[in-house]
Amino acid sequence: MKRTMINRMMLVVCLFLLVFAQAYAQTDPLLSWNDAKAKQSIVDFVKRVSAKGGKEFVPPAERIAVFDNDGTLWAEQPIYFQLAFALDRVKALAPQHPEWKEKEPFASLLKGDLKGALAGGEPAIFQIVMATHAGMTTEEFEKNVRDWIATAKHPKAGRLYTEMVYQPMLELLRYLRASGFKTFIVSGGGIDFMRVFSERVYGIPPEQVIGSSGKLKFELRDGKPVLVKLPEIDFIDDKSGKPEGIHLMIGRRPVAAFGNSIGDKQMLEYTQAGDGARLMMLVHHDDDKREYAYGAKSKVGTFTDALMAQAKKYSWNVISMKDDWKRIFAFEK
Amino acid sequence: MKRTMINRMMLVVCLFLLVFAQAYAQTDPLLSWNDAKAKQSIVDFVKRVSAKGGKEFVPPAERIAVFDNDGTLWAEQPIYFQLAFALDRVKALAPQHPEWKEKEPFASLLKGDLKGALAGGEPAIFQIVMATHAGMTTEEFEKNVRDWIATAKHPKAGRLYTEMVYQPMLELLRYLRASGFKTFIVSGGGIDFMRVFSERVYGIPPEQVIGSSGKLKFELRDGKPVLVKLPEIDFIDDKSGKPEGIHLMIGRRPVAAFGNSIGDKQMLEYTQAGDGARLMMLVHHDDDKREYAYGAKSKVGTFTDALMAQAKKYSWNVISMKDDWKRIFAFEK
Repeated sequence: MKRTMINRMMLVVCLFLLVFAQAYAQTDPLLSWNDAKAKQSIVDFVKRVSAKGGKEFVPPAERIAVFDNDGTLWAEQPIYFQLAFALDRVKALAPQHPEWKEKEPFASLLKGDLKGALAGGEPAIFQIVMATHAGMTTEEFEKNVRDWIATAKHPKAGRLYTEMVYQPMLELLRYLRASGFKTFIVSGGGIDFMRVFSERVYGIPPEQVIGSSGKLKFELRDGKPVLVKLPEIDFIDDKSGKPEGIHLMIGRRPVAAFGNSIGDKQMLEYTQAGDGARLMMLVHHDDDKREYAYGAKSKVGTFTDALMAQAKKYSWNVISMKDDWKRIFAFEK
Repeated sequence: MKRTMINRMMLVVCLFLLVFAQAYAQTDPLLSWNDAKAKQSIVDFVKRVSAKGGKEFVPPAERIAVFDNDGTLWAEQPIYFQLAFALDRVKALAPQHPEWKEKEPFASLLKGDLKGALAGGEPAIFQIVMATHAGMTTEEFEKNVRDWIATAKHPKAGRLYTEMVYQPMLELLRYLRASGFKTFIVSGGGIDFMRVFSERVYGIPPEQVIGSSGKLKFELRDGKPVLVKLPEIDFIDDKSGKPEGIHLMIGRRPVAAFGNSIGDKQMLEYTQAGDGARLMMLVHHDDDKREYAYGAKSKVGTFTDALMAQAKKYSWNVISMKDDWKRIFAFEK
């Protein structure tokens, strides 16, 4: 065979491969997922509820999918990112609060002793959160979060917190929306905190974010109507609060629910109890090389043995970060 | 001229008129509105926020329009329709509550004395609402509303309550959605009550309905997860509650707000306080022939003189049902 002939054939093969690769990329919206059971369950579920005339067809208006945020859509170690925000705010506000030098949990915190600060348990956390999340208008708070999240870095990865989102979950969100689903966040995190970046990072608009909230007070400040964040909890969107929040804010039972902790149990139970096809999945943190391992066997964290037992009993899908995800973060090579 | 010639010409004219009428119908989405200031304000506002490159352009994601329900989207006389539902439920439940014969406000109510029953003021209404809206699962309540609304008739019009919706407002909802807006209900009415019919009647899905709510309790009944409605108020979506509810449930300031009473004042103020183009409108009930007249001058009802004064001062648009609406209800000839 002549050299030019071989070159031509090579060119044809290359073109074919290119076209094929592109077609494959277009037909596989879950590129960062390994071809294993978790991915298969998702694709299979979406096909079943989308098949017109099929017995498991769900009208688009009822295709509600709910996602926990911390540990499900983005990382939550070494501490919840919202707590990292609160700690940074305490430091920033300290000059205006000289009394904090003598007052726990602030005193320990300002000395860099996080463990000491959090030793006070929930009341200590409550004080930190209220000092940094209340007493200002919703717009002032929004600005604080926006400024922080644009620059603050994750201590281990050295990346922006908004880069600590799970690439496979971003693909899943997009895939569900392209399949007629409406995607919601249902998180124990603060609703006003998440809404600052949910649209940009997840493609989820503020009206589809459900979270914990503080009480608000409408008032006129210099003749301008504002909403002031009061130092009082209104709603905790965790455990039983999740189905309650879903009913209040969506008013429809989801057909798909994704979580990663014991706080998501009731949300998955509530989702499963509806009629027809359902998809319940739990992200299991079992990858200490690429992320963290604090799952069922680790005896720490919120994916407890009881949750794993329930997942088995109720046939919930457990996503192994180690085995099911080809890539965890977009910045990975 | 020959008779056949005349016939042909008539045919051409008829066809022309038909085509013209259809084209006109297609280009005027607000057919039931008279060509007056209110209609002009709406069309003008929509054009300004939709004009790409225009200095008042609003991205579709931010085109949030909020609507009060009672008296704004459907009638509210002679009593709130949800109260009519509650009264009918009291009668239906009476056989299971022999004690109600001796107990106010139920005793008066069962004797047909509505005025006597409501003489107890808010606590009496609270008792009626709780007896008919709590102590059951959300699904049981939904079924009660669905059954009632399918058959109960308005006492004056003799029509289903869902026929008592304002045709011009239905056209407005559709027009806004066709122009990229997301339409929300923000009402003092019960959230679980409105969601039963909001999608069918207004084209507004449950997740875009904000209203007053009672507390919920998640529990397992016979192993099945349910949400039980507790006899405890969670949130009153009226007056200052409206902007608070909007922030909690939407998380974005609306660009357009529609109401009809003093309970909508804060919602309109909050809407107006944002930057850029804004549209605030109040439906004024001044048509005692086709509907009811209980507006500013009537000294009854919730469209007070103070509200009319504020509308003038803040340049809010007042919709005169008498002058601005060609047709009020779809069933009118």
